[in-house]
Amino acid sequence: MSSYTAPLKDMHFVLTELARVDKVAELPGYEEAASDVVEAILDESAKFTSGVLAPLNASGDQEGASWADKSVTMPKGFKEAYAQFVDSGWNALSGNPEHGGQGLPKVVAAAVQEMWKSSNMAFSLCPLLTLGAIEALELAGSDAQKAMYLPNMIAGTWTGTMNITEPQAGSDLAAIRSRAVPQADGTYRIFGQKIFITYGDHDMAENTIHLVLARTPDAPEGVKGISLFVVPKFMVNPDGSLGERNDAYCVSIEHKLGIHASPTCVMAIGDSGGAIGTLVGKENDGLKYMFVMMNAARFAVGLEGLAIGEAAYQHAVAYARERVQGRAIEGSPSGVPIIQHPDIRRMLMLMRSQVEAMRALAYSVAAAHDAAVRHPDAAERAKNQAFVDLMIPVVKGWSTETGNELSYLGVQVHGGMGFIEETGAAQFMRDARITTIYEGTTGIQANDLMGRKIAREGGATIKSVIGMMQLTRDEVVKQAGAEFVAIAAALGRGIEALQQATDYIVSNYGADVRTVASGAVPFLRLMGIVSGGWMMARAALAAQDKISSGESDPFFPAKITTAHFYADHVMVTAAGLALEVVQGGTSALTLDEARF
Amino acid sequence: MSSYTAPLKDMHFVLTELARVDKVAELPGYEEAASDVVEAILDESAKFTSGVLAPLNASGDQEGASWADKSVTMPKGFKEAYAQFVDSGWNALSGNPEHGGQGLPKVVAAAVQEMWKSSNMAFSLCPLLTLGAIEALELAGSDAQKAMYLPNMIAGTWTGTMNITEPQAGSDLAAIRSRAVPQADGTYRIFGQKIFITYGDHDMAENTIHLVLARTPDAPEGVKGISLFVVPKFMVNPDGSLGERNDAYCVSIEHKLGIHASPTCVMAIGDSGGAIGTLVGKENDGLKYMFVMMNAARFAVGLEGLAIGEAAYQHAVAYARERVQGRAIEGSPSGVPIIQHPDIRRMLMLMRSQVEAMRALAYSVAAAHDAAVRHPDAAERAKNQAFVDLMIPVVKGWSTETGNELSYLGVQVHGGMGFIEETGAAQFMRDARITTIYEGTTGIQANDLMGRKIAREGGATIKSVIGMMQLTRDEVVKQAGAEFVAIAAALGRGIEALQQATDYIVSNYGADVRTVASGAVPFLRLMGIVSGGWMMARAALAAQDKISSGESDPFFPAKITTAHFYADHVMVTAAGLALEVVQGGTSALTLDEARF
Repeated sequence: MSSYTAPLKDMHFVLTELARVDKVAELPGYEEAASDVVEAILDESAKFTSGVLAPLNASGDQEGASWADKSVTMPKGFKEAYAQFVDSGWNALSGNPEHGGQGLPKVVAAAVQEMWKSSNMAFSLCPLLTLGAIEALELAGSDAQKAMYLPNMIAGTWTGTMNITEPQAGSDLAAIRSRAVPQADGTYRIFGQKIFITYGDHDMAENTIHLVLARTPDAPEGVKGISLFVVPKFMVNPDGSLGERNDAYCVSIEHKLGIHASPTCVMAIGDSGGAIGTLVGKENDGLKYMFVMMNAARFAVGLEGLAIGEAAYQHAVAYARERVQGRAIEGSPSGVPIIQHPDIRRMLMLMRSQVEAMRALAYSVAAAHDAAVRHPDAAERAKNQAFVDLMIPVVKGWSTETGNELSYLGVQVHGGMGFIEETGAAQFMRDARITTIYEGTTGIQANDLMGRKIAREGGATIKSVIGMMQLTRDEVVKQAGAEFVAIAAALGRGIEALQQATDYIVSNYGADVRTVASGAVPFLRLMGIVSGGWMMARAALAAQDKISSGESDPFFPAKITTAHFYADHVMVTAAGLALEVVQGGTSALTLDEARF
Repeated sequence: MSSYTAPLKDMHFVLTELARVDKVAELPGYEEAASDVVEAILDESAKFTSGVLAPLNASGDQEGASWADKSVTMPKGFKEAYAQFVDSGWNALSGNPEHGGQGLPKVVAAAVQEMWKSSNMAFSLCPLLTLGAIEALELAGSDAQKAMYLPNMIAGTWTGTMNITEPQAGSDLAAIRSRAVPQADGTYRIFGQKIFITYGDHDMAENTIHLVLARTPDAPEGVKGISLFVVPKFMVNPDGSLGERNDAYCVSIEHKLGIHASPTCVMAIGDSGGAIGTLVGKENDGLKYMFVMMNAARFAVGLEGLAIGEAAYQHAVAYARERVQGRAIEGSPSGVPIIQHPDIRRMLMLMRSQVEAMRALAYSVAAAHDAAVRHPDAAERAKNQAFVDLMIPVVKGWSTETGNELSYLGVQVHGGMGFIEETGAAQFMRDARITTIYEGTTGIQANDLMGRKIAREGGATIKSVIGMMQLTRDEVVKQAGAEFVAIAAALGRGIEALQQATDYIVSNYGADVRTVASGAVPFLRLMGIVSGGWMMARAALAAQDKISSGESDPFFPAKITTAHFYADHVMVTAAGLALEVVQGGTSALTLDEARF
């Protein structure tokens, strides 16, 4: 089985040319993100992920996490790998320096995290959840909570979870029923059952810090009555040592299609008298904090789509080079490696070009996040925040749907061997399948995009983004060569389609939300594809700049070829998607429910 | 978990209104296919598949086939179900009456087989392979071979296999190395290793009749030196009783992504002195016979795409009706079943409409096959055969790719539960994944379509099919109502796209096969989507006829709605696919192999 190699060259290209990490390094507090430091970090991360995480990906899938006596045992090697992960400081990369973190910007963390996810997605979910819990405590925790939990969580010696979902409350958090009963000492006793809790229990860390959504006795109904609590697995003594076992247990784990090494727990909270928890932030404001965490988590899951696509691509290329089967279609004296067959080439190009587009968009959004947080100018912060808010559902929804498509193609490139589990191609497809579901399904991302991010503000932000796309197109039009002609034409048609669909949404969402919303997912795909095409056009321009300035590395012409392919094979779907949005609402909703 | 119910009403509609089973019943030898007989058969088949096969689908997946001591043991219940299958005469449905078959036409068998595949795809592969082996023996077997094997194979008491693939010979049969050494008694000793042999061993039948591709000592190289042999698991004595165990053994089975109950065998043939086989037909003509079998098998695998889509659709609808989650987007007093959410509705319509399109095309092709075989007029036979030859790769390639997409959507409708294996949605997705690979990958179907079926004859058949599509469109244009306006417009655009891509292929295939072939799969998808749209338009016209003649069943307006949806949401992709074919070849092939 082929192994994972971090695509360092492409990562550096995207960081420097498209996400402009140099600009991020000018922001106060991010001065460390100078290019040589970033390069060193990515090099080390590449070694760690290829050497430590990737070798456990297939074995972790085959063995899976196991459960007995209310405890989860991780597959062979995971505990040791996690110890190395913590010792090397990877968990602390983006953490607040006040609590021992390295304070690196999100754009650098994104590249590092992409490597975790490509090399071993099931492993990567543990730090993903920990980072989400850290974010919630940073945002709303008291000083005492921060002091008690953050140093160990940032180091990674303690991990975190998000206890949100209940059997009747999946996408609909209003239906949450877990209860939090205040105690005389200011703590709460928490009672409830939570499901789908990623890394709800495991044996890789000393302690697990659960963040739990629950209702206090007099809380209003619905989403306005949900509070956030911190519930440690082991209580923490005033001196920082671990105390008694708290009353929150993993009572079973799920048998899943993929990510077998990541334990998905059913949590019984408070079955023996109540789990002890403390309130995070204000009562009834839990959902607000959860949404902040969720935005970070949605971005991170979007990275998973990209990362699995990259891993599946590498795996498919390796097989296509080595597998000899059939003559060339134009004739050849003997059999050829299948990478020479036109359709295999087309599939690999579909994988390669869309991975590049997803990476460019994700890192650019991460850089905008950094500016939104740290830019000295308030207007710049607001502008960047609006861009991030618009793009989070796109990065999440589009990248994960695309990651699934690419892992499907990865299996196809392998032919019959792709269906055999030992080959490894099928694992990427199985692991990818959860990414369009958790942290909000694609449908939920699309509703967020169409409703909250576009219709609510009359399309102000998306119109400014379309304006930026148009400026890029104007630059492309100035370039010579058939590739740039094709890229300009495709980007022009893509922008037109996006503009048409946006106008339709802004004009009709208020009057007929139901009909318009039936086109939400096609619109999200359209937005992703055209945003990706914009990024590919920017990449081609940057590559052309390098070529014009005398660079002879074939990496740069390859960037232009890949952008050309994306224009010819991916952007061509834009017009059809816009038609679905604009004219497809009625036929989607006409059929009587009873007729299905 | 929901169970399978055969969609009898839609099957009857397609059989009577689109595939015109009444015309098939007028063909000599098919008089039995009168509508009341067909109805009775489908009713019985529906009971058998819901009652016997469907209940074993999930348990068969979980337990899987197992191997020990060169023998395969089937999961619990399969042996008994197979006995019932044979006793009820299902295996003999389409068999030659001379050898005990019922001689029903392919169009009726297609509907029955769809039910096998929907209810339990892993089970259905056993009769699929048997029917293929029967077809080869019917075509090329000697009278003695027919007499020895066919009665038991048609009854199903003996099953069949196709031993084709070898480790170095997957898609490329020229690379086959198995040897056949002639003996003094007229038999051959066969030696070789075969892989991916479906039902190469199992415990459901008394005997297994292997059809094996191998080379005789003086055979020419490549595909012109391959012969077909019949190699029974147990030798057959002159009185028909079973004799000695032959030297062909299953030495291991594969650990696969799906169809766990279907044993995929590595066969060691002749390791202890040589397996005894007899030549089928003429020496070195094996590939010719294999292609006839393959066309039947490709059609049958196309049915699998449709069948899995149907099963996934039923499963998703059942969940979407019962799962209450979230308020209606336009507001509702409390939570609603998710079938009311617009995006869920869109996904279910995508599933429903494409299943209907695939079924209509597949049954129509089956009816054309029946006419190609039995029509008294030679010109009619030839015309129908040309249509079948053109459409086989479309039914196979398009229906299986679509079946995968639909089972993917089925998981998505289930949200988080879709990722949990016990729900059953994921199994459809895993089982479907092989269908675009075996019996020739989608790439191979697409090359066959573009090269052998279109370019070679200058597009004669496809042009006549486009002409038929145009006639249907002319009828649609005459209808009143917004649905028909939309259907006519979409079909018109689809025909235009197909025409444009066809012209490009016919004009350029000879001069630059490599570039043109890189668009083969997008072309196959285009052809499938537009052919499906043609069928949906025919269905809408037939439904409108019923409505105009006073039928009040809501089934008929639903047909028009579904065709309208297909026009708005599926046909819209046609133009982009044509662009990929016509302009995408260069960018697909430019990148240097070393740069991947």
